[in-house]
Amino acid sequence: MAVYTEVTDEALAGFLEDYDLGTAVAFRGIAEGVENSNYQLRTTAGDFILTLYEKRVDPAELPWFLGLMEHLSAQGITCPQPVCGRDGQSLRRLAGRPACITTFLPGVWPRRVRPEHCGPVGAALAALHLAGAGYAPVRPNALGPAGWPPLLARCLPRADEVQAGLGAKLSVALDRIETAWPTGLPRGHIHADLFPDNVFFLEGRLSGLIDFYFAATDLLAYDVAICLNAWCFEPDFQFNVTRARAMLRGYGEVRALAAAERAALPVLCQGAALRFLLTRLFDWVNTPPGAMVTRKDPLEYLRRLRFHLAAGDEHAYGL
Amino acid sequence: MAVYTEVTDEALAGFLEDYDLGTAVAFRGIAEGVENSNYQLRTTAGDFILTLYEKRVDPAELPWFLGLMEHLSAQGITCPQPVCGRDGQSLRRLAGRPACITTFLPGVWPRRVRPEHCGPVGAALAALHLAGAGYAPVRPNALGPAGWPPLLARCLPRADEVQAGLGAKLSVALDRIETAWPTGLPRGHIHADLFPDNVFFLEGRLSGLIDFYFAATDLLAYDVAICLNAWCFEPDFQFNVTRARAMLRGYGEVRALAAAERAALPVLCQGAALRFLLTRLFDWVNTPPGAMVTRKDPLEYLRRLRFHLAAGDEHAYGL
Repeated sequence: MAVYTEVTDEALAGFLEDYDLGTAVAFRGIAEGVENSNYQLRTTAGDFILTLYEKRVDPAELPWFLGLMEHLSAQGITCPQPVCGRDGQSLRRLAGRPACITTFLPGVWPRRVRPEHCGPVGAALAALHLAGAGYAPVRPNALGPAGWPPLLARCLPRADEVQAGLGAKLSVALDRIETAWPTGLPRGHIHADLFPDNVFFLEGRLSGLIDFYFAATDLLAYDVAICLNAWCFEPDFQFNVTRARAMLRGYGEVRALAAAERAALPVLCQGAALRFLLTRLFDWVNTPPGAMVTRKDPLEYLRRLRFHLAAGDEHAYGL
Repeated sequence: MAVYTEVTDEALAGFLEDYDLGTAVAFRGIAEGVENSNYQLRTTAGDFILTLYEKRVDPAELPWFLGLMEHLSAQGITCPQPVCGRDGQSLRRLAGRPACITTFLPGVWPRRVRPEHCGPVGAALAALHLAGAGYAPVRPNALGPAGWPPLLARCLPRADEVQAGLGAKLSVALDRIETAWPTGLPRGHIHADLFPDNVFFLEGRLSGLIDFYFAATDLLAYDVAICLNAWCFEPDFQFNVTRARAMLRGYGEVRALAAAERAALPVLCQGAALRFLLTRLFDWVNTPPGAMVTRKDPLEYLRRLRFHLAAGDEHAYGL
């Protein structure tokens, strides 16, 4: 569940006094999401999302995320817009947390992915990559390749509790991925977490992208690899090449993947699978039994990683 | 979190075809609640709540709950209204569960209770008790006194894992409560779960009551006792008599408590505390470690129970 911090009605009323949004008419926690506390907020002025940033988000980085969302929106990407208070600021504090009101996006995220979703997702990702080009500030990707060795080191002492031999398996995979990691591919701002619950559709058309709080500056094709992991596996972890082909075609219609980017897809996908495997594994071994949070199974990404390690070249992805 | 069953977008679209509500514009899980899966649903026709009934709800009982909500609304109680499809039915199936669309109620539930909330809650509870009088069908309260001995029996083998001596303590308390349980008090339909997250306020006024899926036919004053437990303890489990006095006064202005009801408040409150203690204890000892659900601490109700066991008479509640 995605409400870690409760907001009292007095605190909410006081918070809204800093805005020209009237008073609260409805206020309910949103179940989706795992990183921050999100509320659906209706005021006498309309519908909004109120986000309280929890411990994984560095408050010093919030202006970068909010600035990116404003920039992307100005470039025609449909994404939540930070709403400013009377003081012109969109970022303030509530219930002891950094907090921001953003605009409400209509749409429904696809609980079951179909190939028809994947073309528009690819196209939207490419559009995001192009639109991000004019946003000058840079945010190094803490969960990119440089972040994996220290993350693995912190998981290793207990990795084998999850599966015998897992630690050794991940060390070997990381070595192989680091060695093969491409250099010189086009860089830019990436979403880095464009899973189905962050993409809205309305009447069969992609209607918006949300949740930019993992966004960073990294290889654009790595973002494609994240989406291939997020959208193109069946519930039984079989790779669905029809979806992948649709996604890559949709992407390519907006921004052509260079030959080097296409050739790097297997290792980029390996890295993306490893990244989600490691953060899930870290949470798994660091969540005390009985803690009231939902832990996601890290081994789901071991199965994805296996597919990508066996992928000889870009043709494995339908190219 | 309160989304146990996911609804695919195709399933939702197909479901909505049975209604005159247009198509889905937004669809998000609601974090509040623990029993059923609740979604905030916006269609081209407006805002609604979609509820999928999970395993604790007996599908055969759903018509009773929905009928009560319709009856109460017709009597002027602001509560969600079941929305009928084109076939005139409000109850159908979705994603393998019984499901119902209800109207959306504006309002915000009080995350921090103040005495000003308690008078209106008492008055609304009394109004609900009066309004329920004309609803003929009866639903025995499975979580009333008759349900406690079997529930305790199922908890006893593992109760002492939660706290040493807890099993014996609860057996003694149950004996005492059963012996003192009043007979002959006024009966009717009770909400039985009117906690703060089930009461909405708007601009300082109570704007509606939700979540009638524990409602049953039982002693009206027992419902008052549930509310005293739910609304009148501080976070440190000190009893706040100012809130209790406001609640009982609010109640009394709409429906006078008989002398016998007032006199029975201590044992009714003991029973109410025991009821929530037992269901929480049952969940606690029956939740496998690692299960992805939120368990609520049963001992919070042991502390409430202790207060009520020490309460000599109705004056302990500010009467």
